[in-house]
Order: sequence, then C-alpha cells, then structure tokens
Amino acid sequence: MVNLPPLAGVRLAAVKSHIRYPDRLDLVLIELSSGAEVAGVFTGNAFSAAPVKLAKHHLLEGDIRYFLINTGNANAGTGEAGYLDARRCCRAVAELAGVRIEQILPFSTGVIGEALPVERIEAGIPGVYGALGEANWLLAAQGIMTTDTRPKTASVALDCGGKALTVNGIAKGAGMIKPNMATMLAFVFTDASVPQETLKTMLSGMVERSFNRITVDGDTSTNDACMLVATGEGEVDIAKAGDEERQLFEQALQDVFRTLATEIIRDAEGGSKFVTIGIEGGRSSAECLQVAYAIAESPLVKTALFASDPNWGRILAAIGRAGVTGLEVERVMVRLGDVCLVKNGTLADDYTERRGKAEMQKSDIEINVDLGRGSHRETVWTSDLSLDYVRINAEYRS
Amino acid sequence: MVNLPPLAGVRLAAVKSHIRYPDRLDLVLIELSSGAEVAGVFTGNAFSAAPVKLAKHHLLEGDIRYFLINTGNANAGTGEAGYLDARRCCRAVAELAGVRIEQILPFSTGVIGEALPVERIEAGIPGVYGALGEANWLLAAQGIMTTDTRPKTASVALDCGGKALTVNGIAKGAGMIKPNMATMLAFVFTDASVPQETLKTMLSGMVERSFNRITVDGDTSTNDACMLVATGEGEVDIAKAGDEERQLFEQALQDVFRTLATEIIRDAEGGSKFVTIGIEGGRSSAECLQVAYAIAESPLVKTALFASDPNWGRILAAIGRAGVTGLEVERVMVRLGDVCLVKNGTLADDYTERRGKAEMQKSDIEINVDLGRGSHRETVWTSDLSLDYVRINAEYRS
Repeated sequence: MVNLPPLAGVRLAAVKSHIRYPDRLDLVLIELSSGAEVAGVFTGNAFSAAPVKLAKHHLLEGDIRYFLINTGNANAGTGEAGYLDARRCCRAVAELAGVRIEQILPFSTGVIGEALPVERIEAGIPGVYGALGEANWLLAAQGIMTTDTRPKTASVALDCGGKALTVNGIAKGAGMIKPNMATMLAFVFTDASVPQETLKTMLSGMVERSFNRITVDGDTSTNDACMLVATGEGEVDIAKAGDEERQLFEQALQDVFRTLATEIIRDAEGGSKFVTIGIEGGRSSAECLQVAYAIAESPLVKTALFASDPNWGRILAAIGRAGVTGLEVERVMVRLGDVCLVKNGTLADDYTERRGKAEMQKSDIEINVDLGRGSHRETVWTSDLSLDYVRINAEYRS
Repeated sequence: MVNLPPLAGVRLAAVKSHIRYPDRLDLVLIELSSGAEVAGVFTGNAFSAAPVKLAKHHLLEGDIRYFLINTGNANAGTGEAGYLDARRCCRAVAELAGVRIEQILPFSTGVIGEALPVERIEAGIPGVYGALGEANWLLAAQGIMTTDTRPKTASVALDCGGKALTVNGIAKGAGMIKPNMATMLAFVFTDASVPQETLKTMLSGMVERSFNRITVDGDTSTNDACMLVATGEGEVDIAKAGDEERQLFEQALQDVFRTLATEIIRDAEGGSKFVTIGIEGGRSSAECLQVAYAIAESPLVKTALFASDPNWGRILAAIGRAGVTGLEVERVMVRLGDVCLVKNGTLADDYTERRGKAEMQKSDIEINVDLGRGSHRETVWTSDLSLDYVRINAEYRS
C-alpha cells in the first residue's frame, strides 16, 4: 500500500488511544488550513449518531479547521449524554489548537450504543495533535478502519491548464453499507480553491454517482458521513477556471469518489466477489435503481454469487419482484459478462451452463439487465453473501 | 408427525416420479368433489411461472376438480414451451379422470429455468390417480416439500352451531420466502359450503394476516400460490349460518392459515430462531410494516439473532433507515421479550446485558417496537440468518 502525495493545506496524524482495542490506531486528527472550504453530507438514518448531529451543527457555522475521528465506538444511540461527550472531545482539540469548538468536526465509528470513552480520547489528543504532518495519509486511512481489512485511499494529480492540482481521498467501511446520502466516513481533499456553493453542489453530484450506488447488506449506518474539502492552497482557482479545467477537475473528483466507493465493496465483509449491476432500458432512473437493488440485496442472488453458480432464475425472480409496474417480461434481457443469459424473458438459445459458470467463477462479475422499455440506465456495485459475512457479523458487535 | 383427519370431498395421493431425485415423493394429486368452490391467490412476481399463468386461467373457468402438484422443477422462466408443458400434464389427468383440461389446476415448485420433465410426470399420473384416498394428508404434505425439513400441516375441527366443521391445510416453503399475495404453495380445505365470492374475500383477508406477514429472505418466489377450497360436503352452509357460526368458521380458518405461515418460518432455511416482530404506535399499517420488514430483513439484525447477541444498536439502525417520515426517535421504545431495551430513543436505564442475552438465547424471540406516533400495529414473522442459510443456498440450485 503506497502513501498519497502531500496536499497543500492538509496535515494528518493517527495514534493508538486504546478506545476499544489495546494496540490499534483509533484516533485520527486532520488539520485544514485557514480558509479551507468544507462541504459535507451525512446519513439519512433517523437515528443519526451524536457526532453526526454535532458535525452538522458546526458545519453551519463554517470556518472548519479540524476533523477529529475515532473508531471503536460510534457514539450512536447515546442520547443527550453522547452529544455532550462529542462536544467534550471537540473542546479538547479547540483548546490545544487555539480555535473555537465550532471549528472542529467530530466523527465516530464502531459499536453502537455504548458510552464514548471520552477520557481516553482526551488523553490521546495531545499526542495526535503533536504528530500532525503532511506525509501521514496512509496512517490516517489505517486509523479510521474498523472491520475493513485494508485502508482505502485514492489520489489524482493532474495538470489543469498549466497549473498543478491534487485530489486525495480516504474512506472506511465494509459492513452496514447502504449509504443514504454518504457512506460510513469518506474524506476527500483538493488543494484547488473552490467556492462553498460550488463545492456543495459538486459533493452531492459526486456522492450520488459513487457512495449512493453501493450496497453490501442494505443496512444504512447511523454514522455515515462524507466530507469534501478544498484548501485553496494549490495553484488552481475553480471560480476563475475555464470550462475545460473545470471538467478535468470534476473528472478527477469523480475518479477519487468512485475509487473509494468501489474499494469499500472490494473489502465488503466476507466478500469474495466484486459485482457491477448495470440496468438499462428503464423508463426512469428510479426504476433502474429499484431493479438494481432488488438484485444486489437478494440473499439468494448473493449466495449464488458466493457459490459461483450462474443461477439466472434467482436473478429473474429478483427482477420480477422489484415492483416495476407493467414490466413486460418478454422484453427483458439479462447478460452475465459477455454471456447472454436471458433473451425475451426466457433462457437464451445459445446459453450453456459451461459458459455461465466460466463468467461466475471470475472475481469481478458484471450483471447487465435491459428492461426494454426506456432509455434510462443506472449502475450499482455490490458483493456476495458468504459464510464469512455471517461469521463476522455473528461474532463482531457493531 | 400426525396425519390430518379426513375431510369430506377431498382425496389425495403422492408418488415418486423421479422428477429430480430418484427416491422422493414429488408428484401430488388432490381430488375435489364436484361442486367444490375454489379461490386462489398467486405470486406478485412479474416473472410468474407457467403453471401459475395456466392455473389462473383455469380458475376463471370455475368447476375445478383436481390440483396437480410437482416438486423438483418450478417450470418458471420457461416461456411458451413451459406453458404447453404444464397444459400437457393437465391433459393427462383430465383424460384419466374424464374431465376437461380446464378443471385441473397445475402447481410446480423447485429449480427455476429448466424444462419440465413432462414424460416422467405423465408416467407418474396413473399411479398417483390410482392411489387417491381420504387418509393421505400427511403423504401429500410430504410430497410438496423441497428444501423443507418437515411437512407443514394444520387442522381445526369444531362444533359450529351443533354441526361438525373441519378445516385442513398443508403448505411448503423454507426459502425464497417473502410472499406477495401468497406463499410458495399452501392448500387449505373446508367441508363447509361457502359461496364463491365469500370464499374469495375470506382468502384475501386470511392471506393478508398470515402468509403476507412472513419473510425469510425478502425474496418473492415466482411460483407462490395459495388455494382455499370449500367442498360443501360437510354439515355447515356458511351462506345460511348465523353471525356466531360464521365467526367460529373464520377463526378456524385464521388458525390454520397462521399455523401454516408460522410453520414455514419455523422451518426457514438454516433458521435457528423464530422471531415475532410487533410494531405498534404507527400512523398507518404501511409504516408499521415498513419498520417491521426493515428489521426482519436486515442481514445485521439477522446475524445478531443467529449469534443470540442482544445487539439493540442494529435494531435501532434498521428502524432509523426504514424511511418513516418525521420519526421522532425520542419517542421510540424497543422491547426484547419482557426486557425493555430502548426507551425515549436511547438505552433503557434498567437494561443489563445479562437480561438482554437471556432473552436472545431463547429459540422464540419477540421484538416489539413502539413508534409513539399513532394507533396502528402490525406483526411480521421471520427467522435468523445463519451459516447454514448460506451453505444451503450456495449448494442448492433453486
């Protein structure tokens, strides 16, 4: 795993503060240069965690200087006490750094419903503050992991109309993944200067085509958050950039978001397959997504994927129950990679079990469905349902 | 497993016709007396199987005399050829019995997407026809099983205003269970005389409160069907019965439907828990069901159930993502059996892990949620997600 390049205006650190485990990076601090613009989206779960509520509140005030992230404890379902605990953690950073409490955004991930061990976090803060540096991207990506088996990072450096531009991102997440607004903690940074309103618009567009298109288990977390930061310490100013430069920038952002989102699926709990589900020929994006998620979240399709079994009947059954009104099954086509499985609603003439099996044995699988009734299309990424998924979630207290 | 009592107007038989396995009851014939009224509900899956389409068509004609049921092959996703195959099977029975093809209802269950072995079924029909008898209820219940580990039967015999009345039912199903209209094959019979329109109304009410309230894996089958038969060969005539008798009759029906539905959950693929999820305090039935299914189908809640882990955070997260608009989490209460887990949206003061664990270790678990915003309530039954569920569905081609 290689480190990311430095990005002007961002310093990071991660330390072990014994929140849940004795020997694990579990406290991360990220410092932003003064004047950095920050946009954020948060979980749509009604039981949003205390740090999510506090971070939303602080974000309204603007002028954010620090992200404080702990793992091992989600500080969710902890009521008013949890909110005060999150605020205490922010205060400890604020006092040390000489900024206001409202300039700190708190993030927590880990077990739901236990009191945050505030003393341990407070005890860890001087150390993590003292360790801030521009070369600690990989450490920070490791420091936000929970059931992840590897850190998730993405970076694009490009020449933007003769000026250098960098986008760096880190994310975590492996289970309880069906983001609704954003996924379980993703942080993306650029050194470009981007006006606040533009940044917000870009973030929601990016999230919609990345984190909002993945599902491991259909379970939306209480702590999802995705932040996009523009430090403005680099050479590019998006407000003054031409159309071409702006497109290059948006493409770079899109690459980083999509890489982080798909990295989460590649590290899905117990996952042995990376599955891309493409639906075309829908009358609307909504109905394409309905079908995509019906397939992606079907336990029977997911266990067939685990078994490398080209069980097209289960795919058909999932499409059929997705609730698309007036679906004409005679027009439905299903392809597995390059192999046509279903044509006109029934098994394709030239399909053979051997060809289907060969596609299913790959680790990267593409299921493409044509609904044959419109011009909309959508893509969703998911994983399989394995024995290890059950083992991990029967043993781990999330 | 005890047999059911005879029911006037019904004869049954089951034989081994080698459809998929060499030594298994896989072909069932049920004969109804002339004049029996039949009502049916079928899968809401757009890819409904060939026998479902044909049975719906025949049912419109009325005067049904035989149900022909095979396991081992669902005859689903088989297009026009599948429809003709189902019709050939009906013809074989019709010719032998001297009735019209339209008086036979075909039902198939098993693997999706393979051609029905019509010759084997045709070869088995004389044997199963010759074996028809009134004492073969248990044999028939065994003959419709697929991944079921045991036959599912229910029976109520009662005195209805001085007259004898019997209700018998058999069902099958263990996976691909989230009925939408009905579940994977259930047949309920009474010897009472019931007018056709009354029978239809009763059936939809019964199904709504039984098969339409269970989920194993959220996967709606392509072959679901539930039939209610009134032979009229007994002593009771519902059209002439008083209010009290009619209530007794409806209660008996309800008991049989609910027993069959919950038996399916008790035999859920890989299931080790029987879970009742009660939601009250909703503004509508629809929002109660939204929350109930969000919990019942959450892989994280289901793996926690498998592990006997009182992981209330996962239950809270499922409630929070269920999409109830304007849910005030401070009013939400969650109880696990007799133990209050969550009060006012956070962990109850008197909750202890020991008490929660004791509840979760039971094989029958009740999760009750009060949304605190209305007077509607709903109940849903489900199972856990175990290592065996994944094993069964990775190995079995459904």
